[in-house]
Amino acid sequence: MNTIITIAREYGSGGRIIGKKLAKALGFAFYDKELIEMAAEKIGFSTEYVRENEEKKAFSFISNFYGVSGELPASDRIFIAQSGVIKEIAEKENCVIVGRCADYVLSDHPCCLNIFIHAPIEDRARRVFEEYDEDVPNIKGYIQKMDKKRSSYYNYMTQNKWGQAENYHLSINSSLGIDLTVKMIKAAVEEFRKNK
Amino acid sequence: MNTIITIAREYGSGGRIIGKKLAKALGFAFYDKELIEMAAEKIGFSTEYVRENEEKKAFSFISNFYGVSGELPASDRIFIAQSGVIKEIAEKENCVIVGRCADYVLSDHPCCLNIFIHAPIEDRARRVFEEYDEDVPNIKGYIQKMDKKRSSYYNYMTQNKWGQAENYHLSINSSLGIDLTVKMIKAAVEEFRKNK
Repeated sequence: MNTIITIAREYGSGGRIIGKKLAKALGFAFYDKELIEMAAEKIGFSTEYVRENEEKKAFSFISNFYGVSGELPASDRIFIAQSGVIKEIAEKENCVIVGRCADYVLSDHPCCLNIFIHAPIEDRARRVFEEYDEDVPNIKGYIQKMDKKRSSYYNYMTQNKWGQAENYHLSINSSLGIDLTVKMIKAAVEEFRKNK
Repeated sequence: MNTIITIAREYGSGGRIIGKKLAKALGFAFYDKELIEMAAEKIGFSTEYVRENEEKKAFSFISNFYGVSGELPASDRIFIAQSGVIKEIAEKENCVIVGRCADYVLSDHPCCLNIFIHAPIEDRARRVFEEYDEDVPNIKGYIQKMDKKRSSYYNYMTQNKWGQAENYHLSINSSLGIDLTVKMIKAAVEEFRKNK
């Protein structure tokens, strides 16, 4: 049975790099944007089309009603395709998957550990400025907007509540330090795997 | 530098037993209700008086206004005394402290890891019925009431929000199993200690 680690994360928390380092430390595969490409190929849409459509529809319930064609809206078709890709990956190998509501998609998987990475807004503002190289006038407002975008997408697609500890097995504050966070999660994952 | 693990927990999540097992596994001291006795002695009140007064005042802002005597209300005096006891313990030895807003009290401590234990309500209802031996007619309502009591006390005393992942370094879902939860936390704590 493959072990799957899903990671959801606040914007600027370093969740993606934590996921990448964790995958390397565990010897697992790592997925995030690759999923978009794979899903795009699967449903025959270009990566650009997917990126343009997958999230924006999640914020408008009106535009998301079935159109005149009777087809599902693009965002839903993309989500369904991506979910299929996530399930295929989970069948294939041990992996870390960042974002894409993977915790929800794999909620029936018997060996899936769902992690949420968060950090105080001050730490995230510093990280966005120093490491993401994003220089915006109102950095805290920008972070909150990005979080809102993630939570809207997640809540819309899953009917769960993004970022609430109850949705995840483990929530961890990356203000402990990126490398320490990776080590702590890795140690916990190793115990989790011994038990399976 | 002593390592302090504070544990806050949802009612019925097994947080207290997890704390006790964790302390044993780490070779740390364990504190929960002992604190009440120690605090009671320190401020010269009987344990019964403390138990009667420390929480009930937290739910009534009106009764908590300074009285005619100009003294702090009993709940605040008890909280201050308990906070003193917690700080003394943290000076003295490595330990696990369950409840008593210890995360807030020790927020300036450089080697304190704050943990929150949660679990789905169904698992908690089963645990309360089977293991806590509490047979109440509306078990889920009872659990919610107990959580409310804890959160009201915590939120009132600390001005933080009980149970929100952002208040803690690590939040963990004990539906993974009590012993596995202990092992995962222990492994994470060991990494945390190596880094200090």
